[in-house]
Amino acid sequence: MNSITVVKVGGAVVEDDAQLTDLLKDFSAIEGRKVLIHGGGRKATKLAEKLGIETNMVNGRRITGKDMLDVVTMVYGGLINKTVVARLQACGMNALGLTGADMGIIRSRKRPLKDGIDYGFVGDVENTDGKTLSMLVETGIIPVIAPLTHDGNGNILNTNADTIAAETAKALARHYDVTLIYCFEKKGVLYNPDDEDSVIPVITREDFHKFVEDGTVAGGMIPKIENALSAIDCGVKEVIITLAKAIDGKHGTVIR
Amino acid sequence: MNSITVVKVGGAVVEDDAQLTDLLKDFSAIEGRKVLIHGGGRKATKLAEKLGIETNMVNGRRITGKDMLDVVTMVYGGLINKTVVARLQACGMNALGLTGADMGIIRSRKRPLKDGIDYGFVGDVENTDGKTLSMLVETGIIPVIAPLTHDGNGNILNTNADTIAAETAKALARHYDVTLIYCFEKKGVLYNPDDEDSVIPVITREDFHKFVEDGTVAGGMIPKIENALSAIDCGVKEVIITLAKAIDGKHGTVIR
Repeated sequence: MNSITVVKVGGAVVEDDAQLTDLLKDFSAIEGRKVLIHGGGRKATKLAEKLGIETNMVNGRRITGKDMLDVVTMVYGGLINKTVVARLQACGMNALGLTGADMGIIRSRKRPLKDGIDYGFVGDVENTDGKTLSMLVETGIIPVIAPLTHDGNGNILNTNADTIAAETAKALARHYDVTLIYCFEKKGVLYNPDDEDSVIPVITREDFHKFVEDGTVAGGMIPKIENALSAIDCGVKEVIITLAKAIDGKHGTVIR
Repeated sequence: MNSITVVKVGGAVVEDDAQLTDLLKDFSAIEGRKVLIHGGGRKATKLAEKLGIETNMVNGRRITGKDMLDVVTMVYGGLINKTVVARLQACGMNALGLTGADMGIIRSRKRPLKDGIDYGFVGDVENTDGKTLSMLVETGIIPVIAPLTHDGNGNILNTNADTIAAETAKALARHYDVTLIYCFEKKGVLYNPDDEDSVIPVITREDFHKFVEDGTVAGGMIPKIENALSAIDCGVKEVIITLAKAIDGKHGTVIR
């Protein structure tokens, strides 16, 4: 099978011009087929604030009322997605900006009430069309995916970018050897959170259980690694958690 | 040659939920290959106002400073484009939202100073990739194009939607028999502006010169028809100017 690299970058990287320039350079250097998935939460929060729309986060997820849905559709699907696409085009990469609604590539279901919490227009991914994505990739296109999906009934839904990255990687695993790279503000998963250089080179499922038990892995890192392990279970070759500046596949923590 | 229909709708139609529903029904009913191009100026003006960004129009064109470019990128490329795409998908149409930057389909040049006026980040179309568009169309995709282009150097540029429609129609004319439909708030070009039903059924280039001379055609209608005639000169089969509610090709004024 041919190989493909799926890179997920957070909002902080694509929202800052200098960091975006670095990222594009590094992303250009990745050989072969590739897909970029981006966030954009900080810019959405800023725009919402300017418009007098309150931002409510529960368990790290944005409560998305109708006004907030408009904000994230504008920021993720418009401003950030198209800025990245135009910049990639200028680097000679044939980027195509997508949301899950475009060509119906990612369909989701509006999240039902959870523990009495109404997340609003938030979508849980149901189906990702790896066949259409691979068809695009085979014509030399680089899909750039915003964290928005659709429900098939005409509604856009706000969807976590890490999840979209994992689901895209899984869907592509039927067609390619997939490496999924999560960019992150640290060099990888650390043995010691106070020592930036104490990167754990490899984590298997057994290691993970051990690390959770002894407290080495905690907080937001737990769902991130669970996500990665579930991708591995679904055929993704490897998941790398690394710095945005180190997406060459040679740095960070490898989840196998 | 196979035929294709290129429909351009203004902002008023796609920004209003009831009008959008009507449009999607009528657009669904158009048989065969099709492309939709949309505006969105009113919503951009409203968002700019909320953000304290002043809207300046010169000769019907928006002066586009950096802040306004962000606004139109969000509104045209994000909110309106993705709303329309999700709604079309719900109608069973395989829509793909695009700006000129996506797959590099429309490249433009930042407009130089004109009569001392700096239009800012406004692009004049230089090249439209009809081959890539036809490749998409042949796989059953319905391109939905926002009035944004790119300069190939990483910049998004604000571009008139009528112009994008004309350039797209011309580029497709090398591959198809193209009908270009401009939706409009009147039933067509009128003999008498006070009589909504006095639609001129057909206008040729000779008619146009006569109508301009005797004052039947005046104001903003002149560049619209000039645009249409230039499309005809470049191989577009016919251009129809009609109501958004009458895009079946049987109503309005035909420019030949």
